[in-house]
Amino acid sequence: MRIALVQMSMSPDPQANLAKACARVREAAANGAQVVCLPEMFRSQYFCQRQDPSLFDLAEPIPGPSTESLGAVAAEAGVVVIAPLFERRAPGLYHNSLVVLERDGSIAGLYRKMHIPDDPLYHEKYYFAPGDLGFRSFRTSAGHIGALICWDQWYPEAARLTALEGPLVLFYPTAIGWHPSEKAAFGERQHGAWETIQRAHAIANGVYVAAVNRIGHERLAGDGIEFWGQSFICDPFGEVLVRGSADREEILYAEADRAVQEDVRRNWPFLRDRRIDAYGDITRRFSGDFSK
Amino acid sequence: MRIALVQMSMSPDPQANLAKACARVREAAANGAQVVCLPEMFRSQYFCQRQDPSLFDLAEPIPGPSTESLGAVAAEAGVVVIAPLFERRAPGLYHNSLVVLERDGSIAGLYRKMHIPDDPLYHEKYYFAPGDLGFRSFRTSAGHIGALICWDQWYPEAARLTALEGPLVLFYPTAIGWHPSEKAAFGERQHGAWETIQRAHAIANGVYVAAVNRIGHERLAGDGIEFWGQSFICDPFGEVLVRGSADREEILYAEADRAVQEDVRRNWPFLRDRRIDAYGDITRRFSGDFSK
Repeated sequence: MRIALVQMSMSPDPQANLAKACARVREAAANGAQVVCLPEMFRSQYFCQRQDPSLFDLAEPIPGPSTESLGAVAAEAGVVVIAPLFERRAPGLYHNSLVVLERDGSIAGLYRKMHIPDDPLYHEKYYFAPGDLGFRSFRTSAGHIGALICWDQWYPEAARLTALEGPLVLFYPTAIGWHPSEKAAFGERQHGAWETIQRAHAIANGVYVAAVNRIGHERLAGDGIEFWGQSFICDPFGEVLVRGSADREEILYAEADRAVQEDVRRNWPFLRDRRIDAYGDITRRFSGDFSK
Repeated sequence: MRIALVQMSMSPDPQANLAKACARVREAAANGAQVVCLPEMFRSQYFCQRQDPSLFDLAEPIPGPSTESLGAVAAEAGVVVIAPLFERRAPGLYHNSLVVLERDGSIAGLYRKMHIPDDPLYHEKYYFAPGDLGFRSFRTSAGHIGALICWDQWYPEAARLTALEGPLVLFYPTAIGWHPSEKAAFGERQHGAWETIQRAHAIANGVYVAAVNRIGHERLAGDGIEFWGQSFICDPFGEVLVRGSADREEILYAEADRAVQEDVRRNWPFLRDRRIDAYGDITRRFSGDFSK
């Protein structure tokens, strides 16, 4: 399975972003990609920097305009597309979602971000209801894939539950960056932790991991966010196969191979030895007591 | 909390190994350590390289000779000791265990390795029954710590369940190394995956991780195992604070600080957003179907 990640910047114009995304999908397909993944909410700048009810106008239904346009591109180019969208499900009910489009243009599946952050300049709990579809994988014509979104990447449970469905690759469309005031002191460590934990999901689960981030300094509030790019694909051993720059638009490609997955899992058979009899308390919020 | 890891080599003589361990614990305490952790089954060479019923003679009861000797050292030096032992629980029932010794020499707790590997030269399923005490933390007089053993380190569930008890540090006594025939081709990647996944446990859970390995080339079967040392301690951000060599005996020290843990968890509040309503299927062996 040849996969591609579209690392791009977003302008204030959603139509321009859609047009750019469509062009990149065509380019990736022309270069042999069978599955192309776009960054989280590629249609807009990262509006969650501030709370503004008018910004819900950016949301759209699924199916809707984006799935129609990208579905046509998917069909034309004969490629599976992972398209993260701001989903309008009902008045007052919105999700941070992604759609998997088949290479005939049809909708193969929907995932709604399960873990919703809320931090300075990342006011996602204001905009998005937590996903209610659980962790999902998709058996596409190009192969079996899993897909999660951004903040999900910090949760080993999310990677595990998706991997237990049996996919070859976990995709993580993302919008993560630096607060400019923190970059000098913490930027390298923040990026390092982000890459490390996703490589660990690959290792723990014997899957490829493909994370695609945006680039650019978007100033919608305060000093804005400097998105750190550095999209990457790693193999089931956690080895980074390809890594993007921090500041350029580019398409990353890699081959994901079931034979490699089989070999890695035979040599380090972690799935064999899981203590499923002893994991029940993972559904607890906390087990300790800090008052002691 | 000042912690210390004793990276050491093991001789064929269990008494000599115990004497060396006692000396190192004293040295670490003299250098200010409040908690000292020894490597997995420090009393012997890694006998699991072959299956031999006579090797069960290496096991001992808990409490037993090792807890008596090390308990005396702990009391004398005023230090908490994590002592991994080959536990004889009953005839025909053995565990790969660890004991936490308080600084008055008493036994503060017992953990029995939950995940048991079984691979060429690592015939652990022959020797050890899987642990039946679950994942545990220990509120010692030096602070609240968690402890797991070796193969456990590949399981995000083990780190999470232990971390949910509230400890500041997860200790991982270990015996891991290279098959000499694989070292050139895979050695660096194997070690890299090992360190990466443990750093990820620190990041996901906002805890310090302290992993202590043995060194030396032990030839008990075939070409033996070349233990890769490189014990390390990382902070709740996953940053490696100190890392040992691959081939020298040494004691590693680091400070673990509740204020650092608090700060890291406030800035990346992963525990807040866990979807405990959606993790129940983590107790399944597998959810997919490869026959399709």
